[in-house]
Amino acid sequence: MATTRTKVAVVGASGYTGEELVRLLLGHPDVDLVAATSRQLAGKSLAEAFPRLAHHQKATGLKFSDSEAKQIAREASVVFLALPHGLAAEFAKPLLSAGARVLDLSADFRVKDPDVYREFYGHKHPAPDLLDKSVYGLPEMYRDQIRDAQLVACPGCYPTSILVPLRPLIRRKAIDRKTILVASMSGVTGGGRKAEVDYLFSECNESVRPYGVPKHRHLSEIEQELSLLAGEKIKIQFTPHLVPINRGIVSTIYSDIAINVVKMDPAVIFKSAYGEEPFVRLLGDERLPDTKHVAGTNFIDIAWKIDKRTNRIVVMSAIDNIVKGAGGQAVQCMNLMLGLPETAGLI
Amino acid sequence: MATTRTKVAVVGASGYTGEELVRLLLGHPDVDLVAATSRQLAGKSLAEAFPRLAHHQKATGLKFSDSEAKQIAREASVVFLALPHGLAAEFAKPLLSAGARVLDLSADFRVKDPDVYREFYGHKHPAPDLLDKSVYGLPEMYRDQIRDAQLVACPGCYPTSILVPLRPLIRRKAIDRKTILVASMSGVTGGGRKAEVDYLFSECNESVRPYGVPKHRHLSEIEQELSLLAGEKIKIQFTPHLVPINRGIVSTIYSDIAINVVKMDPAVIFKSAYGEEPFVRLLGDERLPDTKHVAGTNFIDIAWKIDKRTNRIVVMSAIDNIVKGAGGQAVQCMNLMLGLPETAGLI
Amino acid sequence: MATTRTKVAVVGASGYTGEELVRLLLGHPDVDLVAATSRQLAGKSLAEAFPRLAHHQKATGLKFSDSEAKQIAREASVVFLALPHGLAAEFAKPLLSAGARVLDLSADFRVKDPDVYREFYGHKHPAPDLLDKSVYGLPEMYRDQIRDAQLVACPGCYPTSILVPLRPLIRRKAIDRKTILVASMSGVTGGGRKAEVDYLFSECNESVRPYGVPKHRHLSEIEQELSLLAGEKIKIQFTPHLVPINRGIVSTIYSDIAINVVKMDPAVIFKSAYGEEPFVRLLGDERLPDTKHVAGTNFIDIAWKIDKRTNRIVVMSAIDNIVKGAGGQAVQCMNLMLGLPETAGLI
Amino acid sequence: MATTRTKVAVVGASGYTGEELVRLLLGHPDVDLVAATSRQLAGKSLAEAFPRLAHHQKATGLKFSDSEAKQIAREASVVFLALPHGLAAEFAKPLLSAGARVLDLSADFRVKDPDVYREFYGHKHPAPDLLDKSVYGLPEMYRDQIRDAQLVACPGCYPTSILVPLRPLIRRKAIDRKTILVASMSGVTGGGRKAEVDYLFSECNESVRPYGVPKHRHLSEIEQELSLLAGEKIKIQFTPHLVPINRGIVSTIYSDIAINVVKMDPAVIFKSAYGEEPFVRLLGDERLPDTKHVAGTNFIDIAWKIDKRTNRIVVMSAIDNIVKGAGGQAVQCMNLMLGLPETAGLI
Repeated sequence: MATTRTKVAVVGASGYTGEELVRLLLGHPDVDLVAATSRQLAGKSLAEAFPRLAHHQKATGLKFSDSEAKQIAREASVVFLALPHGLAAEFAKPLLSAGARVLDLSADFRVKDPDVYREFYGHKHPAPDLLDKSVYGLPEMYRDQIRDAQLVACPGCYPTSILVPLRPLIRRKAIDRKTILVASMSGVTGGGRKAEVDYLFSECNESVRPYGVPKHRHLSEIEQELSLLAGEKIKIQFTPHLVPINRGIVSTIYSDIAINVVKMDPAVIFKSAYGEEPFVRLLGDERLPDTKHVAGTNFIDIAWKIDKRTNRIVVMSAIDNIVKGAGGQAVQCMNLMLGLPETAGLI
Repeated sequence: MATTRTKVAVVGASGYTGEELVRLLLGHPDVDLVAATSRQLAGKSLAEAFPRLAHHQKATGLKFSDSEAKQIAREASVVFLALPHGLAAEFAKPLLSAGARVLDLSADFRVKDPDVYREFYGHKHPAPDLLDKSVYGLPEMYRDQIRDAQLVACPGCYPTSILVPLRPLIRRKAIDRKTILVASMSGVTGGGRKAEVDYLFSECNESVRPYGVPKHRHLSEIEQELSLLAGEKIKIQFTPHLVPINRGIVSTIYSDIAINVVKMDPAVIFKSAYGEEPFVRLLGDERLPDTKHVAGTNFIDIAWKIDKRTNRIVVMSAIDNIVKGAGGQAVQCMNLMLGLPETAGLI
Repeated sequence: MATTRTKVAVVGASGYTGEELVRLLLGHPDVDLVAATSRQLAGKSLAEAFPRLAHHQKATGLKFSDSEAKQIAREASVVFLALPHGLAAEFAKPLLSAGARVLDLSADFRVKDPDVYREFYGHKHPAPDLLDKSVYGLPEMYRDQIRDAQLVACPGCYPTSILVPLRPLIRRKAIDRKTILVASMSGVTGGGRKAEVDYLFSECNESVRPYGVPKHRHLSEIEQELSLLAGEKIKIQFTPHLVPINRGIVSTIYSDIAINVVKMDPAVIFKSAYGEEPFVRLLGDERLPDTKHVAGTNFIDIAWKIDKRTNRIVVMSAIDNIVKGAGGQAVQCMNLMLGLPETAGLI
Repeated sequence: MATTRTKVAVVGASGYTGEELVRLLLGHPDVDLVAATSRQLAGKSLAEAFPRLAHHQKATGLKFSDSEAKQIAREASVVFLALPHGLAAEFAKPLLSAGARVLDLSADFRVKDPDVYREFYGHKHPAPDLLDKSVYGLPEMYRDQIRDAQLVACPGCYPTSILVPLRPLIRRKAIDRKTILVASMSGVTGGGRKAEVDYLFSECNESVRPYGVPKHRHLSEIEQELSLLAGEKIKIQFTPHLVPINRGIVSTIYSDIAINVVKMDPAVIFKSAYGEEPFVRLLGDERLPDTKHVAGTNFIDIAWKIDKRTNRIVVMSAIDNIVKGAGGQAVQCMNLMLGLPETAGLI
């Protein structure tokens, strides 16, 4: 058995997503975490950096390094990048050249059009030639392509919570694509483990606030994927809000029901699309999602209500933003890439 | 001076709204709180029931009673009702007959049409003949009528956060009335001081959840007032969410910009409507509201963004749900009714 | 394999401890959860009652029952009782008679002296003849006895956080037994899933408060076990505080260093006692415990500081009150009783 | 009237204490806030920096400056320093020379012995010659001296919560001075508005942790004041904990009852000491303090329990750490200095 275990590494492991990846990979039955890098934590063991993992034998032995890409590619065949955008692409290039398979959790390879990337991220794309190679790492949409990918662009947290619920409705032409609006609420880990006053406890506690209105960066990948699904350009309205929880996103999605849909049954549409999905839980139209039921898990809970008064559908989803919205989904993709059970290390 | 101070009472003072009313009225420079009733707290002093107020001389002396309406009407000329709907109307009748002026914080007198009341509240209206008399207690809309009212129906918390921002846009015909959607997030005091498992700390902490989808009770009064403003029936989409804060509501309101509005300047519209309002703070299109900036105050903060990509306007408001959304607004109405400065006891 | 899996049941599974037990037992590799009872949830599936577990195949199939003890004893050979004290003892009697092995998470079998039980719990002990049979379920103290026990009295959450750190110091006579003081801080799940105003979100959020001063019920079992360790009667000071977190207890323990201890090295004492313990993590005298590092785990983190200025030792521990402080520790005991690896289903 | 209003300034007004001072002084009936300095906020109006105050006319007009001490002394006769320790003393020197009265909220003038200052604060005292001049700004202890002081050293938040309860017990020799232990729990504003990872929302939420064990800096002033009261050197044990609330400190204080005190009645002792104090609320031995009852106020709530089993007294206090523990107490001192009613602007 041991000879077949894949060696994996996490680059930029000091943040919330990096820590979650480390936690999941240490507990994964089929892969070996052999390296974790962090400029800031270099020299510390995983156990020292993440006291929650202090009991784990490997966490005690493994130290953060400040290794370069080539060194990492020699140690591991699968590499997760939990780096800021811009930096991630720079790091991916030598890794890919050296033959490693890369799962990037930054935004660098999500948006296919370098002009859109520049519009939303404010700088020129650092590796436009790699964009064609990358696969958008949402298993519910691109399962087969992920299996064979060398470069996976793991989706943003908001996009995951929005695309999974919208996909079947758009494919079935059940909704009016011009009328999609989304209000999302995210926990504060979404802001990263960065020393910024805005994310201090006393600034976030007893605070609810919209931000990134009207053009949050995640809009670029959401609209790209919805447009691909629809076969035509889709623009949506999207407003994120910061709420005082650690983990979790709720997205409440509104759309007019398509004019020619006499009697839409969302239950049929959702069950047909996701009845077999290991991480999609359909709540139907009687129960509503709650972040506390998905926290710490890789599930996305989806509920819906038809409002006959307004001829609209309201779809609501909940995920853990750093599991299904980041590290967990990346591991799900890795499982696909390695031919492992999709749920390995995740349930 | 003392001879001219108005005597006021609070009926049903044990909940969050009741406590807030007691706090505001004890600190009010121009009125005397002479009675507070609560079946459950009867016999206790205000100071015992509300330790936060324990230093207040009057709070030590004044005991909760279990008095009936007639008795209260003898003691006070202005009576606040912080009772459950249904019960409030029953209590209001004898008070009004006895000549008291009544500010009701329940839903009983907000909806003018008894059939709509029955549809949303599930029982026959207990005093339909009083509906004509009641004035909707939103000073930004009904200031003059409130001055002369004998019966004021204080608005719900969500309606306050939605109607104030929408009013000028609807009056100016700046938005497409068929496309109004609202996502609101409320703190947990909105659920009342009721012993229910759903509102336990460990059920609400680390939890964000939609509820009351698609037809929350407050929809009835929101649509009534919007329709009156527009001069035609308006239906909106409204989704409340429960978030783990004590106090505060954020409402994020979306609408298509009206088709014939070539260039809408919301700043002009909002300043023209609310430039002189003592409790409306216009944040413009650069700052965004945050519940922590209004908590404990009677202000409503309003911001907006025009999204040229989608031709929509996004308007965002923040209030304290038990001040501007309940007790504070009731005191603001009382000030109007008594000819006092509108901000007395509130700033 | 399947033929050797032990069948287990949880009685009174609707609360936080019961839910945690259900979660741990559903994920346990070596036992089968065959029954869960709850008067209130009878007829509902585990998945319906606990949406977090909705994806679990068995949670979907297994329904809460309202079964009596005899029926449960026919279905399961190991039974966890998560019932209120008083009721638990009544339920244990027929279970034990029918040959089941019982892990009781109430206080009923923790205190050996029925008079002390009556003093602290306010009613006569319902089954004094069973007290001799019961083993106090703290593996760090009674591992061998737990292995053979038919009736295990699982410790309270506070006692676990206090006894584990104090045990080696008392056994080594390193501290002055008359000077032990403890200040503990507990999360709100410790109060149970009971509909009481005191535990509402808005009563606990932004609140820190001592309670149960000076004679909290858990004092009875803490002093009993400390006295047994010391071979003489020990009385301590203990003050619990309620703090706004879901899960976790920090206990800060003070004691004078014993007069004849010239140079105590707590590191030696603690490592000698707990170096091999699977769920004790010794932080030493440089790092301090934090509930967030143990939340959701069965670990107890222990740190200490010698204060030369005062000749005192300060020992600090952190646990998850419903895992190591309740359900997790009960499963740890069950593993011992069944001859399974002690960490099975817990790491 | 206006001619007699005192002009006051706040230096270093960008943090939580500074903001609270600004809020209190803007609302104060008898003083005029004429200057607020902050290097970081220079040029912004108070209203821009603190949106909560945006409605206040003066907050809109008054801009943060980066003024030097001399300039400030020309504008204001009373100056509050909300600067880091070390820096505060440097700033105080020219202010005092120029004749201003100074209320320093840093630690610089609290500790009378420059060697103790150096021991606890790690650097040489920057103005040892001023130490004799300074008065410790705890009105319950030094009311008369504060009235005439030119330099007031406002106490730390923990010391306030500990000294007020202990003072009468020590003066009456009711407790054994060698056995005093304190466990305190503080909200996160106590850590300041500093961009540090340790105080991020997701690091503090769902976290309780001791820190500063065993020798927190505040120990220096606590022991100094207790020793002065006792007339002999007192050493205490003190452990602070960080808990996830914005505002509030609970201190739980333990002590053996003095050996020669046959029957201590704490109620008599506390009432005799504090019966007339405007900001001390005595809860007696039946109610317990709770931070939520003092949040936003200048009160200190004090309760006590005699434990006959152990012959100890447990005294518990609650304050708002940035009001009674910082800005509010400073305003209380200012009121004394200016001969104003002690509660002006504070109730």
